[in-house]
Amino acid sequence: MKTEHTPKRRRGRPPKGTEGYSKTREALVRAGLEVLTEKGFSASGIDEILRRVAVPKGSFYHYFASKEAFVVELIDHYAAYFALKLDRYLTDESLSPLLRLRAFVTDAEDGMARHQYKRGCLVGNLGQEIGALPEIFRCRLEAVFADWQDRVEKCLLAAKKAGEISPWAQCNKLSAVFWIGWEGAVLRARLEQSPKPLKAFAEFFLTEIAH
Amino acid sequence: MKTEHTPKRRRGRPPKGTEGYSKTREALVRAGLEVLTEKGFSASGIDEILRRVAVPKGSFYHYFASKEAFVVELIDHYAAYFALKLDRYLTDESLSPLLRLRAFVTDAEDGMARHQYKRGCLVGNLGQEIGALPEIFRCRLEAVFADWQDRVEKCLLAAKKAGEISPWAQCNKLSAVFWIGWEGAVLRARLEQSPKPLKAFAEFFLTEIAH
Repeated sequence: MKTEHTPKRRRGRPPKGTEGYSKTREALVRAGLEVLTEKGFSASGIDEILRRVAVPKGSFYHYFASKEAFVVELIDHYAAYFALKLDRYLTDESLSPLLRLRAFVTDAEDGMARHQYKRGCLVGNLGQEIGALPEIFRCRLEAVFADWQDRVEKCLLAAKKAGEISPWAQCNKLSAVFWIGWEGAVLRARLEQSPKPLKAFAEFFLTEIAH
Repeated sequence: MKTEHTPKRRRGRPPKGTEGYSKTREALVRAGLEVLTEKGFSASGIDEILRRVAVPKGSFYHYFASKEAFVVELIDHYAAYFALKLDRYLTDESLSPLLRLRAFVTDAEDGMARHQYKRGCLVGNLGQEIGALPEIFRCRLEAVFADWQDRVEKCLLAAKKAGEISPWAQCNKLSAVFWIGWEGAVLRARLEQSPKPLKAFAEFFLTEIAH
């Protein structure tokens, strides 16, 4: 953190450890999330992300060690944001467990519509591109899916306890199926620029598992 | 087709209309399908495809008008190949309709394993990348899904007639759900390098719709 007293040498780039540095770094993460949820990894250029934040070309490595390190941070950031969102719905005790899952689905429909179906799921996008990505991303993305599955599984266990689904339901398997199908639904919703695939999959899943 | 009598000017590129020209063109389509089912559009370079077929750089436009035209041809080629595959299973009258769908699922599992889970579905890959693709691809990809859905819908109607699924089943909706979830399953199978997501989704879908 020796740069704090040498602002002149940085020519506009705030030194590490200052508020400006952190803000720019956060802005880069936000812009990265926007670009990658729309275009995926391979079609996204660092230059475009830097332009959005008005950070000069060549400054990128001042903020992140590599493009890979940047994307790993995007995955972590997205996973944390999404875990909070899931919790907001799936632990809402004012609703029955299956209605909580429905509320998450409705929120996702609204979110995709708000962005004109341009933005998908970062984890789904990167998963689809796995053949062109550094191997390090694979276990990171699997871990995110495992975390999301755990959260939905807990909600389904609550649904079982509440008698909304069969007492013999295998909640871990059902949760896995939910995420498999849901990512497919997000993909199709973007392609068709419509909420129909999200509604169709959720309706089938929720109707079939209901007791 | 004026090039047929000027072989010297082509330096190794067979003139249009000849067997060599067609063979090279077909080889480029095959190589394009291999590369794009592994990596998607944005991460695939024309150079890599040309190298695989040992076609010299710069010759690409001798065979295709543009990268877009090439990819449209890949989509059409893949759609035709896949329609044949679907028909082989879904119209096999030696099996009951639901067993036909199961046979297709088993074939897909085998296919993904044979390619070490590196190759996905071209249509799913391009669908996921739609935010970075020329708009012309969108309706093409939607049309392919519509065609696949029609074929599965017919099989489900036969399952209804045979009493394998409920007489009230809405086969068009079920077929749409099958393809939404199936593409999600292919995505996850590649990510996890495992047939489990394919098996999990198919098992849920086929068990739930069975009468």
